[in-house]
Amino acid sequence: VSGSLSPDAVAAAHRRVAPYVRRTPVLTSTLLDAWLGHRLFFKAEGLQKIGAFKIRGATNALLSLKEQGRLPKEVVAFSSGNHAQGVALAARTLGVKATVHIPEGSSPTKARAAASYGADVVFAKTRQEAEERTEAARRLGAHLLHPYDDDAVIAGQGTACLEALEDCPEPDAIFAPCGGGGLLSGSVLAKELASPSSKIYAGEPLAGNDAARSYRSGGIVRLDKAPDTIADGARTLAVGKRTFPHLRRLDGFFEIDEPDVIYWTQWLNHLLKVAVEPTSALAMAAACAWLKTQDAPKRVLVLLSGGNIAPEAYLRIWERDRLGEVPSLG
Amino acid sequence: VSGSLSPDAVAAAHRRVAPYVRRTPVLTSTLLDAWLGHRLFFKAEGLQKIGAFKIRGATNALLSLKEQGRLPKEVVAFSSGNHAQGVALAARTLGVKATVHIPEGSSPTKARAAASYGADVVFAKTRQEAEERTEAARRLGAHLLHPYDDDAVIAGQGTACLEALEDCPEPDAIFAPCGGGGLLSGSVLAKELASPSSKIYAGEPLAGNDAARSYRSGGIVRLDKAPDTIADGARTLAVGKRTFPHLRRLDGFFEIDEPDVIYWTQWLNHLLKVAVEPTSALAMAAACAWLKTQDAPKRVLVLLSGGNIAPEAYLRIWERDRLGEVPSLG
Repeated sequence: VSGSLSPDAVAAAHRRVAPYVRRTPVLTSTLLDAWLGHRLFFKAEGLQKIGAFKIRGATNALLSLKEQGRLPKEVVAFSSGNHAQGVALAARTLGVKATVHIPEGSSPTKARAAASYGADVVFAKTRQEAEERTEAARRLGAHLLHPYDDDAVIAGQGTACLEALEDCPEPDAIFAPCGGGGLLSGSVLAKELASPSSKIYAGEPLAGNDAARSYRSGGIVRLDKAPDTIADGARTLAVGKRTFPHLRRLDGFFEIDEPDVIYWTQWLNHLLKVAVEPTSALAMAAACAWLKTQDAPKRVLVLLSGGNIAPEAYLRIWERDRLGEVPSLG
Repeated sequence: VSGSLSPDAVAAAHRRVAPYVRRTPVLTSTLLDAWLGHRLFFKAEGLQKIGAFKIRGATNALLSLKEQGRLPKEVVAFSSGNHAQGVALAARTLGVKATVHIPEGSSPTKARAAASYGADVVFAKTRQEAEERTEAARRLGAHLLHPYDDDAVIAGQGTACLEALEDCPEPDAIFAPCGGGGLLSGSVLAKELASPSSKIYAGEPLAGNDAARSYRSGGIVRLDKAPDTIADGARTLAVGKRTFPHLRRLDGFFEIDEPDVIYWTQWLNHLLKVAVEPTSALAMAAACAWLKTQDAPKRVLVLLSGGNIAPEAYLRIWERDRLGEVPSLG
């Protein structure tokens, strides 16, 4: 089944989810364009419902099941972050009970948000325990909604890129952050459909570069433990069996160090005035790394995945003022 | 001349500035409305050019002079914040030289932004020195653009409220922060024009409540030194001769303590996913204080003045997590 998903699945997903998700704006910054000498377009999924693109995949998965007459009574998921909120809200929208298993130590803000959307939130001691409980619930009849290793989730996430390509047609290159690979896989399909000549690249934390290593080696590399990166959406241990075939068709990976993640988190929040979480800064840092290799002015599309920043993350992000150092490719 | 400004001046200002400023969105939060039991509408001027409403007044002032055939060769202003950026960008748009005098100790981020818009930025040792140098430049022929004590500036700031009243017609009440009173004065005029039955209230820091005291006493109260508040847009010493007559027509003032400013800065940034500066949180805190006195569900419009947050302000804002305490009027 892996890799069998077609670009048309993203168009179908968009028709399905459009009534339930926000059409987020594509933002620009005159100052930034002047400093870099290129034109940058930012798809602001921080302004999406739940503050991240994840609502798209969860909504498409449940609506697809409903179309097939297989809408479950209960969905279950494990997540330390945005996926929990996406599942909670999508389930409420469709009148389905949701249970999310969240490892202790995850952001209490995200857990509270999932609960406020009506999900049962169950804390587990570890990520492994959360996964085991999810699996147990699945065996008892609940539908498991995987955060990325699911074709309907991948197609749903791709709708963010598809919309952006309507507002910013045929960019020279597209950049997105890589966690489990759901957003990137959907974006590969979206650009094949809407802008086949565009290049597409991933930004991944250097501290957790399993996807880049998988891309280079041709086989899925799995980390032993969650990487220590401020980009909490990219703390996944490995990409999925269903995302990897799409990720192999990327034009490349850029591995981003932590100071660069923080630098671009500061600057994007400062310039765009919308919440930009560190994971999204990976895409911008990747775009800069690519632009440094270009001779002529380019138009690039940067997919900003979300805007959920925990209080303690604000303190780490702004510990040292990086705004004195103006962006430049020099 | 004081108080001679008519509501029509705001409509004229809107026709003038509309091609040069952004029509910012009015945002809502389903969660917040559910928690408070009222409907709240937020005019997001943080998404305005320069990240604050101040571009409106500066642009209207220069365009008005141009209409009268009196466009100056040079404008000069003193400001520690958003007004400097507004003057810099408006002057560049109209091809006028701008010099802004900024007291040392002001946010370097805002000074840099003014410089990046092409203004000459001159640092002064104190606010008084900045004002004196501005006055000296005025005597040499430059046009002084006051941050609030200027009818064209007041009319320009009112366009934010006028637009918001188109998107959110006839709210029960309107709330805005009070610094020098420019935004509030323009908003009083805008609501007389577009929604005369709406109430309109100010939020001011308790630590610098000169305007509330002026309102109560009927004469302008002047502070000896800049108040110690995180709401840096409200560190003015006194309201202006031209704003005070409008401020007297407000329905009331709410004096907000610092923990409340920080609480609402955290929550508005968290819920709306756009940058909301502490000064804007004054308006929300005032809205809550008013809503506590209401028996029936209300529709309220909150004018969020800007989204410029200095790096050191982020650290003060997020020093202690307030998101565990869900908003409530109980």
